Amino acid sequence: MVARYERIADELREEILSGAHPVGTQLPSEAELAARFGAARGTVRQAVAVLAAEGLVGSRQGARRIVLGNAPSQSFAELHSFAQWARANGYRYEGRVIEQRRRPATAAEAARLGSGEVLDVLRVRSLEGEPVLVERTAYAAWVAGEVERLPPDCESVTQALYDAIGLVFAYGEHLIDAVPAGAQDARLLGVRRGSPLLRQRRVTTTHEGRPVESSDDRYRAGSVTFSIRNSIGANPLVRQAGDLRFRP
Amino acid sequence: MVARYERIADELREEILSGAHPVGTQLPSEAELAARFGAARGTVRQAVAVLAAEGLVGSRQGARRIVLGNAPSQSFAELHSFAQWARANGYRYEGRVIEQRRRPATAAEAARLGSGEVLDVLRVRSLEGEPVLVERTAYAAWVAGEVERLPPDCESVTQALYDAIGLVFAYGEHLIDAVPAGAQDARLLGVRRGSPLLRQRRVTTTHEGRPVESSDDRYRAGSVTFSIRNSIGANPLVRQAGDLRFRP
Repeated sequence: MVARYERIADELREEILSGAHPVGTQLPSEAELAARFGAARGTVRQAVAVLAAEGLVGSRQGARRIVLGNAPSQSFAELHSFAQWARANGYRYEGRVIEQRRRPATAAEAARLGSGEVLDVLRVRSLEGEPVLVERTAYAAWVAGEVERLPPDCESVTQALYDAIGLVFAYGEHLIDAVPAGAQDARLLGVRRGSPLLRQRRVTTTHEGRPVESSDDRYRAGSVTFSIRNSIGANPLVRQAGDLRFRP
Repeated sequence: MVARYERIADELREEILSGAHPVGTQLPSEAELAARFGAARGTVRQAVAVLAAEGLVGSRQGARRIVLGNAPSQSFAELHSFAQWARANGYRYEGRVIEQRRRPATAAEAARLGSGEVLDVLRVRSLEGEPVLVERTAYAAWVAGEVERLPPDCESVTQALYDAIGLVFAYGEHLIDAVPAGAQDARLLGVRRGSPLLRQRRVTTTHEGRPVESSDDRYRAGSVTFSIRNSIGANPLVRQAGDLRFRP
């Protein structure tokens, strides 16, 4: 059962994303929207508050709000899964497991994953035929068996784990920085040693907060950009000096 | 006037951030919290929903929620202002203008900033005595005069602009990737040409959605990390292939 204000928010969001309300223009007033949707002004206000929380419209200036953005937010699943992202954007993509082995967790991994043993997987992902990403993922012991059963060229690990055991990745913490390519990175990505890579370290958990994996993903410079929108009201982005966390 | 649920959310947040409810443990049930705060269960539910939206606690499992995080979110002002961030974290910092000049906006800048002329400012920022950041900022014409009046070693441009004209930075769009250091980057940061830099391109606007600046900020690898928390319910992070936006 979708609330009335959510349906109005959906409609307005679609209009903003489609460019019907260009960035920088004013959204119609609450009174105008209420008349158009045949809804109470309070309902329209709730709908517009949803769009404000998403950063699509600004705070109120007199009777109206300014349209601030029209870039759709990526779903969490799409962000988490390279394959789902690539597919949604119409890119050709491949993935390949290079190495895979079980080993005891480091102290940091044991703390992050709540697992004494991990399954280490080294994967290379390519986009449009070019290797762009080296993934070094440590899976918690409770999913290791399922991951080991996947074929080495499994298109989407996220999808396969969902199909196999109903696993849904639901929360993520990401650390993003730049690092020089190491010898293995350079070989796998076909770049010079020391050349810039965009690194994303992440820990992902289920809805219940159960850690599934921690990963060190390195993208060839120029292949991928992360985009974040924030505001005084909602700032998910934090700057940290050096490597203060995730230390082994 | 702060609502009751907000005060309860504040108190619980403080407890989570202080480690009183460690990550991975269960938050007390609604009934327990209602009894403790002498509040209605609906009020407690609202308070906990605030924490869930912030990613601090997970979704409900039976009667309880799991504590997911204890890293405090940085305020937008702190993220936006290098000086405010460094000060809040107890780092020594400095800033210095290297070059500054007015010039016509490029077509892309004109579209982003709504300004036919921009003020270009090249700044170097240091942390703990080391140069770590090269900022290339284009200010919209309407703030250019105020920026020009600032001393070249102005500690916090954000603070100075607030003091001078009440300017509040309120919305940001950020693109984060890795790039090789160019000749000027290398010289200003004391690194080799081609070595990895973490680049943050951003456009920041006022509350009304009025663009103030667009900037290309480059951090020496190892000096700064960006951290982002996201969830199925709230995903501010988007992955993009290559440089699809911000092209000149």
